[in-house]
Amino acid sequence: MTQTRLTDPSALTIAAAQAAMAAGRLTARGLLEACLERVAQVEPVVRALTAFDAGAARAAADAADRAGRPGLFGGIPFGAKDVLDSADLVSGYGSPIWAGHRPRGDAAAIAMTRAAGGILLGKTVTTEFATRRPGPTANPWHRGHTPGGSSSGSAAGVAAGFFPAAFGTQTAGSILRPAAFNGVAGYKPSYGTIHRGGMKVMSESLDTIGALGRTLADCAMLVAAAAGLPAPPAARASAPRILFCPGPAEALLTDATRALLAATASRLSAAGARVADATLPPAVMAAVTAHPAVMNGESAQALAWERATSRAQISDGLLAVLDQGAALAPGALDAARVVFADARATYLDWLGDADLVLTASAPGEAPEGLGWTGDPACNLLWTALHGPCASLPAGVGPAGLPLGVQLVGRFGADDAFVAAAGWVEAALG
Amino acid sequence: MTQTRLTDPSALTIAAAQAAMAAGRLTARGLLEACLERVAQVEPVVRALTAFDAGAARAAADAADRAGRPGLFGGIPFGAKDVLDSADLVSGYGSPIWAGHRPRGDAAAIAMTRAAGGILLGKTVTTEFATRRPGPTANPWHRGHTPGGSSSGSAAGVAAGFFPAAFGTQTAGSILRPAAFNGVAGYKPSYGTIHRGGMKVMSESLDTIGALGRTLADCAMLVAAAAGLPAPPAARASAPRILFCPGPAEALLTDATRALLAATASRLSAAGARVADATLPPAVMAAVTAHPAVMNGESAQALAWERATSRAQISDGLLAVLDQGAALAPGALDAARVVFADARATYLDWLGDADLVLTASAPGEAPEGLGWTGDPACNLLWTALHGPCASLPAGVGPAGLPLGVQLVGRFGADDAFVAAAGWVEAALG
Repeated sequence: MTQTRLTDPSALTIAAAQAAMAAGRLTARGLLEACLERVAQVEPVVRALTAFDAGAARAAADAADRAGRPGLFGGIPFGAKDVLDSADLVSGYGSPIWAGHRPRGDAAAIAMTRAAGGILLGKTVTTEFATRRPGPTANPWHRGHTPGGSSSGSAAGVAAGFFPAAFGTQTAGSILRPAAFNGVAGYKPSYGTIHRGGMKVMSESLDTIGALGRTLADCAMLVAAAAGLPAPPAARASAPRILFCPGPAEALLTDATRALLAATASRLSAAGARVADATLPPAVMAAVTAHPAVMNGESAQALAWERATSRAQISDGLLAVLDQGAALAPGALDAARVVFADARATYLDWLGDADLVLTASAPGEAPEGLGWTGDPACNLLWTALHGPCASLPAGVGPAGLPLGVQLVGRFGADDAFVAAAGWVEAALG
Repeated sequence: MTQTRLTDPSALTIAAAQAAMAAGRLTARGLLEACLERVAQVEPVVRALTAFDAGAARAAADAADRAGRPGLFGGIPFGAKDVLDSADLVSGYGSPIWAGHRPRGDAAAIAMTRAAGGILLGKTVTTEFATRRPGPTANPWHRGHTPGGSSSGSAAGVAAGFFPAAFGTQTAGSILRPAAFNGVAGYKPSYGTIHRGGMKVMSESLDTIGALGRTLADCAMLVAAAAGLPAPPAARASAPRILFCPGPAEALLTDATRALLAATASRLSAAGARVADATLPPAVMAAVTAHPAVMNGESAQALAWERATSRAQISDGLLAVLDQGAALAPGALDAARVVFADARATYLDWLGDADLVLTASAPGEAPEGLGWTGDPACNLLWTALHGPCASLPAGVGPAGLPLGVQLVGRFGADDAFVAAAGWVEAALG
């Protein structure tokens, strides 16, 4: 990975960049130019972007500078996964069916972030409709390895310094897995926090918009801007209560991931956290089994128009999954949604007075090759539970690629989650 | 209201039309022509449609006839509220901001119904973004009265015989209220049953796609087609257990509505139903108070692009509501969503082994004038609870306009709901 110099504005956190702008040492245009320079250097190899318009971004940055950079996200560049509509850039959803599509309006997430002062730098590569078939993006840590998916370009673009933060979306593990694979932070807020208007939604019950960024605080800033919320809280001072739970994909974890999780639990305990081993109850684990029915059944409905009119332009792998979803037994989808509702209620009881669950972000390092984005098995349960989840960078594995750890919280208590996860980030830093 | 002759195919239920087609006594084209004749006669007064293309509909009907009308909805015309995208008709969302908009693809609901054999006859009038500002539609029972909203054109179009069933959407009371006002049936299935892809969604937590039709069975057929489900169940033979609950808007009910509800409870009891009086617990009623924060807060996000770029083209009334939603106190939206989650769980406990709740569809008859679509106070709680709801025609009020009664069921148990509500429909018929 090409290193950025510490004095390069593209390497600043959002808070540091905004402090530098407030102090007159940086402009939105200057920050944008530093990011565009990273794009010019690295994009030919990483291929994280589907569309960008440097002229429009420069005009927006200049306008922000003239206005004094108002808003929570004032003057900060961001990227947006190409399942989110933008009025001024092609929005292709990772599918040839939508090639060249120019929406009339911006997705709610993009419009809200622009209204909060953000500068849309570009759209980022998604897998086909945020499912399996990868785009061309390479992992900035090693071009022969996948960046993960489906939020491939947002994760790789953040790691490569194109923008401090970018939008991703998650149905199973599409934010947290690429975050771990690229050595950046990923944050999926509670389901419904960011409006999905103008997003190509696949699973209505699961799809959640979130952020990838260099730090959890940067992710939380983008989420707050997109949701119209005030600045997220700082890391809490007191140590949180943590349930240590390898999770439903324990059997898939590499030795390095198992060792990382155990070492992380020990470090956090040594730093003062109360860490208790915990096993998920059957009513929560049932959501793992129910997940494919909901994801595939709802996705088959989502792509009904594409299946009817453009079947030849859908990949064989996706077609097979959609056909499965369309052929579910009567009542199977309703039943799976009821399992989800029970799992959510049971999870909250199980969590008790704990602040966080500590679990794996991914089975191991990013797999070799660009043909497969890796396994979302460590993430899909927590997505179905609808609470906030984050992946934090946590070291490097035997192949020299990054590893992450996942934290999970309580639905609707995202400020408490960000504050507690911030304590963990500081303790691991 | 202009009466249709009993032999007019436009007056047939879906089951009767499909039986006539199977017997060779009717074609899809013949049914469509009967519906188009109703449009030609009544549309100049009722103004239920925003866009229709008779030639395209005829071509689709002819193709269906040549193919033998396969599919659950084979050969049946339907309407679609103009918050649902259609690739071949303008989709304007009831707002001048989207005037002339031609989406690239069909909404999932429309694509699924077409795949099940349905013939899209036209798009129907919605209020501005499915909120308050009415379109031009008049009530077919009396042109000086509102048809209700926001699914104004779908309700009026069904009542006028344009199609056996049409899609509506409901955030507060936008399917059931117009159903009652137009003397037709309305059915909102469990939240999430029909995919909202390609819909202009306002409140992610509330918006639900459903159907208006002359009978509950017709509504349930359209919902099944759109959700990829098998044919809905017939009315059950055994009498259901019913909780009689005037609901959160009891104080607003007219004397005629109170008398109707009491008489309905008596009739159902006399027909064999076990009817018990019931009062909603505070944790359920709390969702009434939480509803505006969720609806307005999420709608402000939904229209972030329109607010930023086209504020002058949003009505003053809607702007005021959106500005309220954008100015919610930090944490208010999360807190309101948690109230909803608690209310849903408490409602299921309260419902116990009952099959249905019997409550009011609307405070009274359709108000006079076309400037106000009426009060959704009888419906918004049940929308927030996410279970299936239906309004059934139940007589005529003192002004000679229709009244309805509302039935509510259990989330995810829509087949049981349709079967039990079908018993009620038969008992009242």
